[in-house]
Amino acid sequence: MRFFRNLCRPVLSTFPQRHLSRKSLAVMYSEEGDPRRVLRLTSTPVPDPGHGEVLVRMLASPINPSDINMIQGVYPQRPPFLPAVAGNEGVGEVVETGPGVEYLKTGDWVVPDKFCWGTWRTLVIGREVSLIRVPRDVPLADLAILSVTTGTAYRMLKDFEHLEPGDVVLQNGANSAVGKALIQLASHFGLQTVNVVRDRPDMDALVSELKRLGATHVIPDTGLRSQETKDLMKSLPAPRLACNCVGGKQTVDLVRYLAEEGSVVTYGAMSKQPLFIPAGMFIFKDYRMRGIWVTKWYSDNPLVKRQAMWHELCELTKKGVLESPNHRMVPLSSFQDGVAKSMDDFTNEKQILSM
Amino acid sequence: MRFFRNLCRPVLSTFPQRHLSRKSLAVMYSEEGDPRRVLRLTSTPVPDPGHGEVLVRMLASPINPSDINMIQGVYPQRPPFLPAVAGNEGVGEVVETGPGVEYLKTGDWVVPDKFCWGTWRTLVIGREVSLIRVPRDVPLADLAILSVTTGTAYRMLKDFEHLEPGDVVLQNGANSAVGKALIQLASHFGLQTVNVVRDRPDMDALVSELKRLGATHVIPDTGLRSQETKDLMKSLPAPRLACNCVGGKQTVDLVRYLAEEGSVVTYGAMSKQPLFIPAGMFIFKDYRMRGIWVTKWYSDNPLVKRQAMWHELCELTKKGVLESPNHRMVPLSSFQDGVAKSMDDFTNEKQILSM
Repeated sequence: MRFFRNLCRPVLSTFPQRHLSRKSLAVMYSEEGDPRRVLRLTSTPVPDPGHGEVLVRMLASPINPSDINMIQGVYPQRPPFLPAVAGNEGVGEVVETGPGVEYLKTGDWVVPDKFCWGTWRTLVIGREVSLIRVPRDVPLADLAILSVTTGTAYRMLKDFEHLEPGDVVLQNGANSAVGKALIQLASHFGLQTVNVVRDRPDMDALVSELKRLGATHVIPDTGLRSQETKDLMKSLPAPRLACNCVGGKQTVDLVRYLAEEGSVVTYGAMSKQPLFIPAGMFIFKDYRMRGIWVTKWYSDNPLVKRQAMWHELCELTKKGVLESPNHRMVPLSSFQDGVAKSMDDFTNEKQILSM
Repeated sequence: MRFFRNLCRPVLSTFPQRHLSRKSLAVMYSEEGDPRRVLRLTSTPVPDPGHGEVLVRMLASPINPSDINMIQGVYPQRPPFLPAVAGNEGVGEVVETGPGVEYLKTGDWVVPDKFCWGTWRTLVIGREVSLIRVPRDVPLADLAILSVTTGTAYRMLKDFEHLEPGDVVLQNGANSAVGKALIQLASHFGLQTVNVVRDRPDMDALVSELKRLGATHVIPDTGLRSQETKDLMKSLPAPRLACNCVGGKQTVDLVRYLAEEGSVVTYGAMSKQPLFIPAGMFIFKDYRMRGIWVTKWYSDNPLVKRQAMWHELCELTKKGVLESPNHRMVPLSSFQDGVAKSMDDFTNEKQILSM
């Protein structure tokens, strides 16, 4: 638990003596609850950057399900104290560097690789070692979702099974932002994907969209046990990796198609239900069930590895392998509109705050 | 699934031309169902041992929960055809060797390291490479349960976490035969154990028994969430391994005491319920959930490793580190009595068939 406790370090509270030379607009909350109710746009003082620190002007920051859950107080992580600034992912520009800063310079675009940074604001102080420089010729929307969203998809494909071209990856919640990134990355790596999405009225449009991104097969969750799906799975190499962001009983229906000794990686729980796993899946199928929280990966791995991943993902974005997510840029002052839209069921559009 | 399909090879059917020189008494079933109803004592012909084969006179064979489930038809493994001989574990004596047999000789005591051997009978043909020689100076009851029961406990302590003396291991169903073997082995390795058992009227007697075997702490399942248990767990090093044979929601109550990145190993499902695992246990605690089926371990590992484990376990038995299980020897002709007793709730005695 030490890791969790240290994650959400206060940014401002460590500079009590400094001259507070300017103000930042910030979306803050003083109590946990419905984000449509508890969030306020507030002006907060910002100090000059200290030793090893830079002043960052935030450019764009997505509204993620985990941000919403954190504000609701149902996410395992909480800010160290309230009021707190919301938001955990985003991209900004270095506008001032403090003494002892060697790697970053004014004008650099950076993303935080730490959680609980409070990204829904205009100005923020960051430690140089917690920021990764990213190229300025990548679209803002892509950079805004690179650290948590695209990073999660990338690590799931890299860290759990050794996958070769032609191998099959299963996933549910395939139209989530992570799911779409996974489809594109997998397709780029020569992998086949079987993608499960919630059944819906406009299913054909969603299937077309995911196939355009590179999905090999798309299945509605209501069809997981159908003979058609069974036949499809029999016609494919047995999948060695299943990525799960749904949970509940449905997960079992997906996972039972996995090869023996296959890995199930959980990164979300959209159904808000626990996983129901028959013991036999562990005992006789020898499934290896793990989770991924990319924030922990950032914390556990050295800068050089984090930079390498970011570099690769930015290059893939520039080449068009990863296309910009369906999104809507929402001015920070209209954050309430973005938050409300992000909480709609069946949303297929990422709300990104622009500052 | 290839592994599963090949597991249960018929013994007799491969020798259609051979001279059937003698008869074996065997507990067989022609249909799956309640073992108290479908089992029959039958006389079956036994051929001479062929090339690389030996004739084994079975000496003792336990009645395990998995044997019962297999006869009921609710176990994932089934014999390749019916009628089949029941039983999967046991010890026998080589009474005749076929041509080409090099390692075993008449008079050797052996245990099968393959599943679906049909051990509840007096005579059986086995391939030399599927048998492991064991010392004759170890009590029959210990040898009878060594391959599945004691082997499972041993592998759980060896294969999932690197445990050092002083480390803590959690387990539920701690009064099962596997649980008791685990207590003794863990104690011998210098490990502490926190053992959960179903609450019962004669709790004190069970606690005394498990502590005498080496249990560090014994907790009734009803007390898993108590302040007393929370305080106890806080006073111990965070456990890195939890062994689960119960399943259901209770498992979560046990598992939440595990250290971050700890391993949960499932080897049974006494509650007949799936595991209910909150996604956060995978995502934020980074638990690694696996299963063990020792039969698969035997199949996946070379003879030299299997022999080494058996040698170590036999030595530990001879030294008294592993004591004979609470058991009752039941003559094969009284198998029905043994089967019925083994199906009693709260049984604390292993039924072992003697031939």
